[in-house]
Amino acid sequence: MAPIFLCFLLFLLPTPNTATQDFCVGDLTAPDTPSGYPCKKVSAVTVDDFVFSGLGVPGNTSNLIKAAVTPAFVSTFPGVNGLGISAARIDIAPDGVVPLHTHPGGSELLVVLEGCIYAGFISTANDVYTQSLGPGDAMLFPQGLLHFQINSGDTAAVAIASFSSPAPGLQITAFALFANSLPSPLVEKVTFLDDDEVKKLKAVLGGSG
Amino acid sequence: MAPIFLCFLLFLLPTPNTATQDFCVGDLTAPDTPSGYPCKKVSAVTVDDFVFSGLGVPGNTSNLIKAAVTPAFVSTFPGVNGLGISAARIDIAPDGVVPLHTHPGGSELLVVLEGCIYAGFISTANDVYTQSLGPGDAMLFPQGLLHFQINSGDTAAVAIASFSSPAPGLQITAFALFANSLPSPLVEKVTFLDDDEVKKLKAVLGGSG
Amino acid sequence: MAPIFLCFLLFLLPTPNTATQDFCVGDLTAPDTPSGYPCKKVSAVTVDDFVFSGLGVPGNTSNLIKAAVTPAFVSTFPGVNGLGISAARIDIAPDGVVPLHTHPGGSELLVVLEGCIYAGFISTANDVYTQSLGPGDAMLFPQGLLHFQINSGDTAAVAIASFSSPAPGLQITAFALFANSLPSPLVEKVTFLDDDEVKKLKAVLGGSG
Amino acid sequence: MAPIFLCFLLFLLPTPNTATQDFCVGDLTAPDTPSGYPCKKVSAVTVDDFVFSGLGVPGNTSNLIKAAVTPAFVSTFPGVNGLGISAARIDIAPDGVVPLHTHPGGSELLVVLEGCIYAGFISTANDVYTQSLGPGDAMLFPQGLLHFQINSGDTAAVAIASFSSPAPGLQITAFALFANSLPSPLVEKVTFLDDDEVKKLKAVLGGSG
Amino acid sequence: MAPIFLCFLLFLLPTPNTATQDFCVGDLTAPDTPSGYPCKKVSAVTVDDFVFSGLGVPGNTSNLIKAAVTPAFVSTFPGVNGLGISAARIDIAPDGVVPLHTHPGGSELLVVLEGCIYAGFISTANDVYTQSLGPGDAMLFPQGLLHFQINSGDTAAVAIASFSSPAPGLQITAFALFANSLPSPLVEKVTFLDDDEVKKLKAVLGGSG
Amino acid sequence: MAPIFLCFLLFLLPTPNTATQDFCVGDLTAPDTPSGYPCKKVSAVTVDDFVFSGLGVPGNTSNLIKAAVTPAFVSTFPGVNGLGISAARIDIAPDGVVPLHTHPGGSELLVVLEGCIYAGFISTANDVYTQSLGPGDAMLFPQGLLHFQINSGDTAAVAIASFSSPAPGLQITAFALFANSLPSPLVEKVTFLDDDEVKKLKAVLGGSG
Repeated sequence: MAPIFLCFLLFLLPTPNTATQDFCVGDLTAPDTPSGYPCKKVSAVTVDDFVFSGLGVPGNTSNLIKAAVTPAFVSTFPGVNGLGISAARIDIAPDGVVPLHTHPGGSELLVVLEGCIYAGFISTANDVYTQSLGPGDAMLFPQGLLHFQINSGDTAAVAIASFSSPAPGLQITAFALFANSLPSPLVEKVTFLDDDEVKKLKAVLGGSG
Repeated sequence: MAPIFLCFLLFLLPTPNTATQDFCVGDLTAPDTPSGYPCKKVSAVTVDDFVFSGLGVPGNTSNLIKAAVTPAFVSTFPGVNGLGISAARIDIAPDGVVPLHTHPGGSELLVVLEGCIYAGFISTANDVYTQSLGPGDAMLFPQGLLHFQINSGDTAAVAIASFSSPAPGLQITAFALFANSLPSPLVEKVTFLDDDEVKKLKAVLGGSG
Repeated sequence: MAPIFLCFLLFLLPTPNTATQDFCVGDLTAPDTPSGYPCKKVSAVTVDDFVFSGLGVPGNTSNLIKAAVTPAFVSTFPGVNGLGISAARIDIAPDGVVPLHTHPGGSELLVVLEGCIYAGFISTANDVYTQSLGPGDAMLFPQGLLHFQINSGDTAAVAIASFSSPAPGLQITAFALFANSLPSPLVEKVTFLDDDEVKKLKAVLGGSG
Repeated sequence: MAPIFLCFLLFLLPTPNTATQDFCVGDLTAPDTPSGYPCKKVSAVTVDDFVFSGLGVPGNTSNLIKAAVTPAFVSTFPGVNGLGISAARIDIAPDGVVPLHTHPGGSELLVVLEGCIYAGFISTANDVYTQSLGPGDAMLFPQGLLHFQINSGDTAAVAIASFSSPAPGLQITAFALFANSLPSPLVEKVTFLDDDEVKKLKAVLGGSG
Repeated sequence: MAPIFLCFLLFLLPTPNTATQDFCVGDLTAPDTPSGYPCKKVSAVTVDDFVFSGLGVPGNTSNLIKAAVTPAFVSTFPGVNGLGISAARIDIAPDGVVPLHTHPGGSELLVVLEGCIYAGFISTANDVYTQSLGPGDAMLFPQGLLHFQINSGDTAAVAIASFSSPAPGLQITAFALFANSLPSPLVEKVTFLDDDEVKKLKAVLGGSG
Repeated sequence: MAPIFLCFLLFLLPTPNTATQDFCVGDLTAPDTPSGYPCKKVSAVTVDDFVFSGLGVPGNTSNLIKAAVTPAFVSTFPGVNGLGISAARIDIAPDGVVPLHTHPGGSELLVVLEGCIYAGFISTANDVYTQSLGPGDAMLFPQGLLHFQINSGDTAAVAIASFSSPAPGLQITAFALFANSLPSPLVEKVTFLDDDEVKKLKAVLGGSG
């Protein structure tokens, strides 16, 4: 059967020149494109490209918001490149908060693993959708809408968020307003906030202007 | 030639049963789907479905922000349904502003027609991109990113914005925070704003809680 | 300020007729479309549509494979409709297995929460990618490729899988071959399996023919 | 083993309420959407929905262009709904032609089965790409570009065209200009053609005005 | 608060290695891909990449068609790369015309700014949709369908067209037929036009063959 | 008219700097991206890039399965890059079979040209859809679902398959199980097959482990 078998391999088995794109592990050293990064050569891909272990490590919540986000986005987990999915670990200490933010590039599905989280989002019709979540509860935050997560219990809260994009992005409203060089009068003009408030928060969050 | 011609029509010309979807004018009376509204019957479609005249009418800027947005989105211009595009007219009186906002569902390309507009957006890397725009200038605001437009001149400013979606959405940050029932303590927690500021703006913008 | 404020609301705030599709909670009573189910009316949508609690409940693994999959796909969690994401809880008892299967409609990102899982997938180039995973480890299974998960420890394993589609589908190879009416000679012809083997497994898995 | 087996089915096998959209056979009696027609109920779907036999029947080429197109588009083959593919049979008698046309909604891949076809397309850079094709030759016509096929031999030519859309559309330039009510002066203005020519062809092709 | 703040920045603020693709300004010096050009490095991007001033400059209409199109497509406005939108300025002098043409890659939304334009498109069902447009009127031209614009007034007409693609393309039917090397007999065969007419227009429009 | 004509060309005709992506012939020497390969320079593209002649050549069926697949996928036919379509020729000798397989990346539309083929697919609901096909019959195999084709006649069968992707991929179940290094105990665990059967087929198909 050997000769026939060889022949068979020759004509039917996928060969290098009939490559199909099962996956496209991102080559982060090359410029990305609107569809993601160029693909690492398949011959250099190993199972490690598809495994990410960072979600098992608690984030350091010793900070202003008592919270930490550990992203497994394309920039830290190149295996998700082109696959339309990514994830992140969320740690929120008691009294901590993931402040109001959006993900411009994808929807989020949050699954609470430990503790209690009070979460919510606001629609463009200005309706408010909030819920108290415990372990095993999942909540959706549709793409681009303002949302937040607060530790509403006495113990550390942990959650896994998954996203419908390898690079969903994260824009925290307070940082966008108060942690960069956007001039205070401009911030006031576009938000209706008082000058005192803006300057105070710029000082806290490290903004200038 | 007449008999042959009839035969010809019979076999080659597009007939009702080979309908192809050139367009899909939205039937707003039916439930929409993730891809948009169901299509109005082609036999009921007229050129009026593809024409929108509202962009020629100045918006009324006698309001708090001295600005007005006249949308030609799918809800007011059903012809854009399924076509991946829509538009809006922006009127900004002197001293007026289109406050900080996002379009969760699409990118914006603004073309200034009259007056002067100072516009900008903030990236998720927290970088600020601002520019003074005059008639004929166009500026991009990528999907989901916070941006604003301010009349920076002494005369009324007019612009046409086009969007990469029939329903880009509009979420004005100040309204999302202060013009609904989101409780004040919650707003403060997720934005770092002071209680006084939040209550004052809720009063101005009509929020409760 | 009241009159001006009213005027303002009239011209700028999103109103019902400028509806934008922030989300599209699926109406499972209506026929679906290639893009998903028609949307439930926004006025009937509540936060419950975006929350799914089933992932907190261990699946019953008292079965042949000693494993259970609890899906939060569009059919059980209509909030994911149109959002390009979904999730499932995987429970695998010691010695249990999620047999070889594919998700024709989406890629999977598995996050192990408890126990040890030995998982792998096979590419179309016929390469094998396998890994032992512990709590906090995440692994990707690209769309449509054959893959499996085995409990490789002595305790129950629990994982959360997220998918790049609201309806990724699940096709277990052994069930497709042996748990339906596909005639045994046909199964043998297209798989090279022996008649005895096919008939034995058809008996075990409930197939006929 | 029977009890265990039942339990197993209960917890793992796909059940009606975990429906996944393997396919979406179009229900042509319902209004379509931008993504296609609503799906026929899976319980009513049979293998006949996935089989089309019309491509085996020669089209009638006894007409003006001595050619015939037999489409297996969604309107005649509802199984392709949502699958991003369709096909057509092309028959061209000696001296026949498929006149200059575009497919606004998809790219075409033509495979010649019998006879000789001289085919070509024109890019937006106004470059011309033409080739003589025989049995077994395949040629691409990218989406939306003007192209044509001519029988360049002495015998009937037959080809199978496949398309990257269930509804690629077909706009034959000469018919768009001369076989409808577009007024002659308007046709002349937008094409530079002479009045005599336009009126002559309107008479031949059945146009008015 | 400073030490805590630093810590906070360290763990939550987006850092270079969690890059998310807010935008992808096209690097036109690199080969493009099916999704567009590779992205310019974010560190090299400035606001100028998002601003295009050419739409304020009237096109030169001293030509055969007394019309000019000034495109802000990806090739001249790399900021639109990957954003699904672009624009163009249309100038049409009295008696001028934008001849019958298609955009193979996107739908068009035309907004008239000055003067009067008579515009129309033809569907694949061969139906004609035409309308007289004045300042402020907008009209849609669905992807890939033949359409035209004519100055129907006594003064210069100006319009802004936006498109649902960064590279919609432009194929003017008369140029595709008469301004390249497509041999006259071939043009005649695929259009039914007379030899005299074809040769005359080839001479006018610069075609050979 | 010459001077006016030159001017006209200058302002309206597409020029190199308004390049639009009519097509994107793949440059297989460059790394691909999630959307496909980078494009060959348009100036280097010829009609040969759009023509593939391999479908006219019978595949060699002197092998184990008495069948051959000749792919015109992007790896052998770079013109399909980015166009959402590809094709393959299927040859099946009497008694031959294209074994159970999936295309992870696209749907298939098979058109039988010669002989008789018995084909079928299995849905994720585990329903079986099978049909006997003769010349001119077409059958759909939705993306990612297990399917097969068997020569059910006495003569060679030939078919053309088209796909909704330039790189649909091909995963033959038996090869994925028995023609690589997946250890036998693992194969048995995830398929319920007996050790004897697995080892026997590994020997036949060239697998190790």
